[in-house]
Amino acid sequence: MKFKLAVQDKNCKARAGEITTDHGTIKTPIFMPVGTAGTVKAVHQRELAEDINAQIILGNTYHLYLRPGLETLKLAGGLHKFNGWDKPILTDSGGYQVYSLTEVRKIKEEGVTFRSHIDGSKHLFTPENVMDTQRIIGADIIMAFDECTPYPCNYHYARRSIDMTHRWLKRCINRFDSTAPLYGYSQTLFPIVQGSVYKDLRIKSAEFIAEQNREGNAIGGLSVGEPAEEMYAMTEVVCNVLPTDKPRYLMGVGTPINILENIALGIDMFDCVMPTRNARNGMLFTRKGIINIKNEKWKNDFSPIDADSDLFYDLNYSKAYLRHLIHSKEILGAQIATLHNLHFYLWLVAEAREKIISGDFYDWKNQMVKVLGQKL
Amino acid sequence: MKFKLAVQDKNCKARAGEITTDHGTIKTPIFMPVGTAGTVKAVHQRELAEDINAQIILGNTYHLYLRPGLETLKLAGGLHKFNGWDKPILTDSGGYQVYSLTEVRKIKEEGVTFRSHIDGSKHLFTPENVMDTQRIIGADIIMAFDECTPYPCNYHYARRSIDMTHRWLKRCINRFDSTAPLYGYSQTLFPIVQGSVYKDLRIKSAEFIAEQNREGNAIGGLSVGEPAEEMYAMTEVVCNVLPTDKPRYLMGVGTPINILENIALGIDMFDCVMPTRNARNGMLFTRKGIINIKNEKWKNDFSPIDADSDLFYDLNYSKAYLRHLIHSKEILGAQIATLHNLHFYLWLVAEAREKIISGDFYDWKNQMVKVLGQKL
Ligand SMILES: [Zn+2]
Ligand SMILES: [Zn+2]
Repeated sequence: MKFKLAVQDKNCKARAGEITTDHGTIKTPIFMPVGTAGTVKAVHQRELAEDINAQIILGNTYHLYLRPGLETLKLAGGLHKFNGWDKPILTDSGGYQVYSLTEVRKIKEEGVTFRSHIDGSKHLFTPENVMDTQRIIGADIIMAFDECTPYPCNYHYARRSIDMTHRWLKRCINRFDSTAPLYGYSQTLFPIVQGSVYKDLRIKSAEFIAEQNREGNAIGGLSVGEPAEEMYAMTEVVCNVLPTDKPRYLMGVGTPINILENIALGIDMFDCVMPTRNARNGMLFTRKGIINIKNEKWKNDFSPIDADSDLFYDLNYSKAYLRHLIHSKEILGAQIATLHNLHFYLWLVAEAREKIISGDFYDWKNQMVKVLGQKL
Repeated sequence: MKFKLAVQDKNCKARAGEITTDHGTIKTPIFMPVGTAGTVKAVHQRELAEDINAQIILGNTYHLYLRPGLETLKLAGGLHKFNGWDKPILTDSGGYQVYSLTEVRKIKEEGVTFRSHIDGSKHLFTPENVMDTQRIIGADIIMAFDECTPYPCNYHYARRSIDMTHRWLKRCINRFDSTAPLYGYSQTLFPIVQGSVYKDLRIKSAEFIAEQNREGNAIGGLSVGEPAEEMYAMTEVVCNVLPTDKPRYLMGVGTPINILENIALGIDMFDCVMPTRNARNGMLFTRKGIINIKNEKWKNDFSPIDADSDLFYDLNYSKAYLRHLIHSKEILGAQIATLHNLHFYLWLVAEAREKIISGDFYDWKNQMVKVLGQKL
């Protein structure tokens, strides 16, 4: 993987760059649609590439490990071959799902034991086997196995947690660096800064992560319920420590406003289930604000879903029709709303990139954050 | 509406024809995908037109009347405008859903009272208001309001039922002929032959229906649980009575084999939820037989879903991937399997048409029915 920092904004920490992987390049800042179980829910891979302009998608190690399972993924030749997405893929470590989806789990120094949310079967994730699993999935960018602390989290716990996360990181790095990719293209490992909402812990963690000198770095444990201002404060202190010549990935963030504010603080990569999950409930993000398409006010509004968009589906389906589909729990409603939201998120980061390059980012961002949260 | 009978097969009653509506032409024999609530579940309108080659789709009066409701449909300018499907649409009368979906219902001479399956609200469908409703929905072809008898149905009940269905038909025709289309294009009304599995009743009903001299005729009350041989026997006696110069629509049929056998008996139009509903459960129809994609045998089969097909999705997704999606209840699984099945059904009727025109239908049909039902 290579990262080229193309433009550094003069008015804030925003940057435009380019990540090159063996599956192609990614122009940053970028939003990565979440493809939990090897599919971005309700969207074809061709639509991701051609309609949404996605440049990289996520896969979840936890879900893929359970289903279809490692045997199938290995026989397929990795996730790219399995799902037919030939552009870059990033996989998380599965840690977040183990903490949020499973009921019975035990975190020990060795790793985490948990029971599958599907069939209750017992499993153990360790830093080492999570590296092996991500080798088998074959993502271009893989994530370290960490503990993602909840919010709120007391200082004492958070401090002990980052120490373990750092020990786990060394084990991840040892395993990763002593194994080879399986399918003939290279993979890279991003370590993750933790530390809850405590500046000193975040700085300590960021320093440890920066010292590892990997090709990119991530910030985890944010967007877990803390106020946005705390999130921004953490991003800021961490970005002050992380090297500028490597991409920075803020995990699990967030709303369109969160994304613009964090771009301004120096973040290059984002992922979040919000555009896809909220789409299925009828919440549409637009450049003028947020539409709850279930509302009565759209019942007889036959105007296009989003006249500002160049997405075929935004222009060729009406708000009233989409409202009807979402109300009726029709699959096509999930399809259209998801296409809309992902297309909007990818438009937003592409626009941010253009504004950074043209030098207009900071003012544009301040304008946009005033309207993006409005309820339409 | 116009119907041109292009070719009459020499070895059986199969025919190739062309129906012309104000929304375009339909080459028969044809299969019509079911778009219950104004959407063919899990399929974009663009995919229906470009990938599946659908020429006409169905809407269900019962569902559309309840949701989005007549006010919205009228303000939209009809269903074509509402859902963006600009080719022909056929709507059923809602009768079948009233009998199969609602719990509390009363059939009287006036019409049928029932409670909505959505909110329990009380409604009355009469031959007259069902014509008005279908005027508002604006389908190109609309169906008479009839009683669809269940299977089994005793002779006495079936005989009384067709008498009422015939009285209702006269009321449908009176209302239809004394009202005008609402949106500037013409609509046509098809009457429906009933009579359960009793030849004399079917003949009596077919004679009554033929006498009405409408632009097309339908056969209802089949594919409701009776053995296929009884279905074919009824189709045969009815087609002997119905005029040859008008299209014949066999409602709610059926499997690929049912379709070919009924084409051989003189049927021109079909609809069925089987390709769409079964797709969502992982049942795929192919020209070599039936695949239950959930089966273990496809777990590590990375070959294309259907190498015989020219559908992009059949060639670019593997059986193992589709199996994973269906197992994981992923929306994309429903999307892919539905695209496959509908594409196959439209291929099947298009192929039948070509074989009729080339004079090879009868032998081809006999070959096909031997393999189409095989479990792969
Ligand atoms: Zn999120
Ligand atoms: Zn059917």
